[in-house]
Amino acid sequence: MLEALKEEVCKANLDLVTEGLVIQTFGNVSGIDRASGLVVIKPSGVPYDGMKPEHMVVVELETGKVVESNLRPSSDTATHLVLYRAFKDVGGIVHTHSLYATAWAQAKRAIPAMGTTHADYWHGEVPCTRLMTNDEITSEYEANTGEVIVETFDGIDPLHKPAVVVASHGPFAWGKDAHDAVHNAVILEYLAHLASETLKINPATGSMQGVLLDKHFLRKHGPKAYYGQK
Amino acid sequence: MLEALKEEVCKANLDLVTEGLVIQTFGNVSGIDRASGLVVIKPSGVPYDGMKPEHMVVVELETGKVVESNLRPSSDTATHLVLYRAFKDVGGIVHTHSLYATAWAQAKRAIPAMGTTHADYWHGEVPCTRLMTNDEITSEYEANTGEVIVETFDGIDPLHKPAVVVASHGPFAWGKDAHDAVHNAVILEYLAHLASETLKINPATGSMQGVLLDKHFLRKHGPKAYYGQK
Amino acid sequence: MLEALKEEVCKANLDLVTEGLVIQTFGNVSGIDRASGLVVIKPSGVPYDGMKPEHMVVVELETGKVVESNLRPSSDTATHLVLYRAFKDVGGIVHTHSLYATAWAQAKRAIPAMGTTHADYWHGEVPCTRLMTNDEITSEYEANTGEVIVETFDGIDPLHKPAVVVASHGPFAWGKDAHDAVHNAVILEYLAHLASETLKINPATGSMQGVLLDKHFLRKHGPKAYYGQK
Amino acid sequence: MLEALKEEVCKANLDLVTEGLVIQTFGNVSGIDRASGLVVIKPSGVPYDGMKPEHMVVVELETGKVVESNLRPSSDTATHLVLYRAFKDVGGIVHTHSLYATAWAQAKRAIPAMGTTHADYWHGEVPCTRLMTNDEITSEYEANTGEVIVETFDGIDPLHKPAVVVASHGPFAWGKDAHDAVHNAVILEYLAHLASETLKINPATGSMQGVLLDKHFLRKHGPKAYYGQK
Repeated sequence: MLEALKEEVCKANLDLVTEGLVIQTFGNVSGIDRASGLVVIKPSGVPYDGMKPEHMVVVELETGKVVESNLRPSSDTATHLVLYRAFKDVGGIVHTHSLYATAWAQAKRAIPAMGTTHADYWHGEVPCTRLMTNDEITSEYEANTGEVIVETFDGIDPLHKPAVVVASHGPFAWGKDAHDAVHNAVILEYLAHLASETLKINPATGSMQGVLLDKHFLRKHGPKAYYGQK
Repeated sequence: MLEALKEEVCKANLDLVTEGLVIQTFGNVSGIDRASGLVVIKPSGVPYDGMKPEHMVVVELETGKVVESNLRPSSDTATHLVLYRAFKDVGGIVHTHSLYATAWAQAKRAIPAMGTTHADYWHGEVPCTRLMTNDEITSEYEANTGEVIVETFDGIDPLHKPAVVVASHGPFAWGKDAHDAVHNAVILEYLAHLASETLKINPATGSMQGVLLDKHFLRKHGPKAYYGQK
Repeated sequence: MLEALKEEVCKANLDLVTEGLVIQTFGNVSGIDRASGLVVIKPSGVPYDGMKPEHMVVVELETGKVVESNLRPSSDTATHLVLYRAFKDVGGIVHTHSLYATAWAQAKRAIPAMGTTHADYWHGEVPCTRLMTNDEITSEYEANTGEVIVETFDGIDPLHKPAVVVASHGPFAWGKDAHDAVHNAVILEYLAHLASETLKINPATGSMQGVLLDKHFLRKHGPKAYYGQK
Repeated sequence: MLEALKEEVCKANLDLVTEGLVIQTFGNVSGIDRASGLVVIKPSGVPYDGMKPEHMVVVELETGKVVESNLRPSSDTATHLVLYRAFKDVGGIVHTHSLYATAWAQAKRAIPAMGTTHADYWHGEVPCTRLMTNDEITSEYEANTGEVIVETFDGIDPLHKPAVVVASHGPFAWGKDAHDAVHNAVILEYLAHLASETLKINPATGSMQGVLLDKHFLRKHGPKAYYGQK
């Protein structure tokens, strides 16, 4: 069942380790098969060492019910499902506690677009969610984490700003598929690191010029892109 | 004599090196056999390279007397013994001079619980001890280091906050056994690093919401935990 | 056609990866053959893994026309060409988004000569360009990036200060040839890191004494140099 | 001639690379044979890769004359010789531009003894020299660098504080022999890093209590030491 997707999601989870984005059993990647309405996700609290495609858990997009697996799905599964339901073009989602992006999340600050490295991938800042209410935390916490992210992206194309930092928590990134989501999580971590180092030199650094932001983003994305090979 | 424990303690000491928590001969791990009242600990000032289980030193919990060994025990042995006597559920103790946790110790500040990465392991801040008095330093220094830690944990379950930073010194971490203590020392170092990076972005960052702290800690610990596999 | 130069430029591009100066497909190196007026440069957006000399693109210095290749040249080619036209003694150019130099670029600050490590290679600060105007960004952006660098070096020998940080963007470095340009990009990254760490300790640190700057630069460069072997 | 010392000095120079204390051809180590009044030192500007004992240069302590070698000695040789003449118990000297120690040198600040990691090796702060005068820089610069270090250690036992940061320049470390000097340079870099990280958390952190400093230094050094094996 969904063998190719399981393999892709398993590989994407292991890539998190290779890329240095996770410690211990933290972090999880999922991918969705839109046709069948099924989501494949990492099991909860299982070591990366020895992780195989058959350990991936299949759940229903609409209900969260486990369709196939002896293992429990990631404890963050409900967050992933809320995002897949709201972000129709997203095919893969990553959650990590990677160092620099998590530091921005803990600082409860959006990551400003400070330069062209950022603008090449993100069309503006990496948003930070508002704090959750006590009610949102004590009931349906994981689903509500998804809801507060969706609220943050009201009116924003999620593929133009493919990540968020959840206040007092850490980053979620996404993409066209699981592989692309990991790629964006890697870029996010670099941008977060770069922005931190920039603040060290000039604490007042804010966003770059809007015209330069547009120039770089649209040079790589959209109908007039001219970066890379045809 | 206590061959299995010696092997476990030796491996835990070597894991400190693999995890990047020690430089030179700094750092030491011990484990306790509660039934016999004996503690196994690293010898003092011996290089990690070539360290073997038979080099581990066995001392009496109550007296500190060396029961078996040609080598002197770690100069911090008296600190370990005081902690074992006060913290009845602790089975292993680690002391390091790891970079980020030691920086917090030198800054003489507790590490606040700034986010869920922290809350997944610690039920609140990592405490910092008060400064020791001249008398405490000049006589029975190592035992008094233990006493000041115990004083800091008055009314706190040491397994709910499994480490401390000793002011102007460095971290001590502990756990159910020597392996678990090293695991907690690794997490502590990551949390200390993460908290430092957070301050760089927002120097005013303090503790996270208490409700969120409880949610994450109790999601992984205690009777209602639902993280990981059954 | 220009086989030796293609090999040198390809190797220099791969050295960027080895030296840790690039992530993803960012970064590009070029080299010039002054006799024929031809420039060899990395193709746009091609992965470093598997990059070969035959992938390098040959373009005309004066027109930017591709002379030989099935691949598009780097999107930054126009910047390189403007620099080669203005800096007659430069034989190789590097552009990266390396962490610390880019942080200075994002902070929109020149990197002061804070010590002898810097003075051994740079005869003064690493300049930072002014912000580009909206017009400069929206038309001929890449060529105008070159023009604003050239404007910054008015009256400065580019081989005495072999790099610049472009505001809100990142560093360009150069040298006698492609290999030397990469060498200077490596040194620049170390100097940028060193200067950032210095600000952390003393935020008021400015330039070193002029006499000491001259002493170190001229000890290694110019007719009275006495560093190294004859 | 002095084959054993050449081998030791060569190995110590290569250890600088292994320990991550040098980039490019920066850095040099020397060792002295007090009986013959001869100093063995690294040649100037020679790559570490392929460096062999026979490349080491032998110079006279009193005159600086090269006794044996086809290669020029390190451009910092005169600094080493001044230190050997003033510090009679020193057997090896190291100069590096290692990141964190050099940052303190550029910040023109002594490194305070902030905790026991420092006190285990240094009996107080790592001193910083005063700025050199224009005259001292323009004539006999390298010898004067040594003189300003010696001036800084007036009344201090150099083996109780086995390093200095030279303002706007970088660290010199020393020890009983070349190996011990490299060991102290490694510790110095860790202490410099640790002190920087501490300032990030609490910029007001100063020296530790004097009683605690004495306790830790004397626990490892001097007649009442009880650290390590007998």
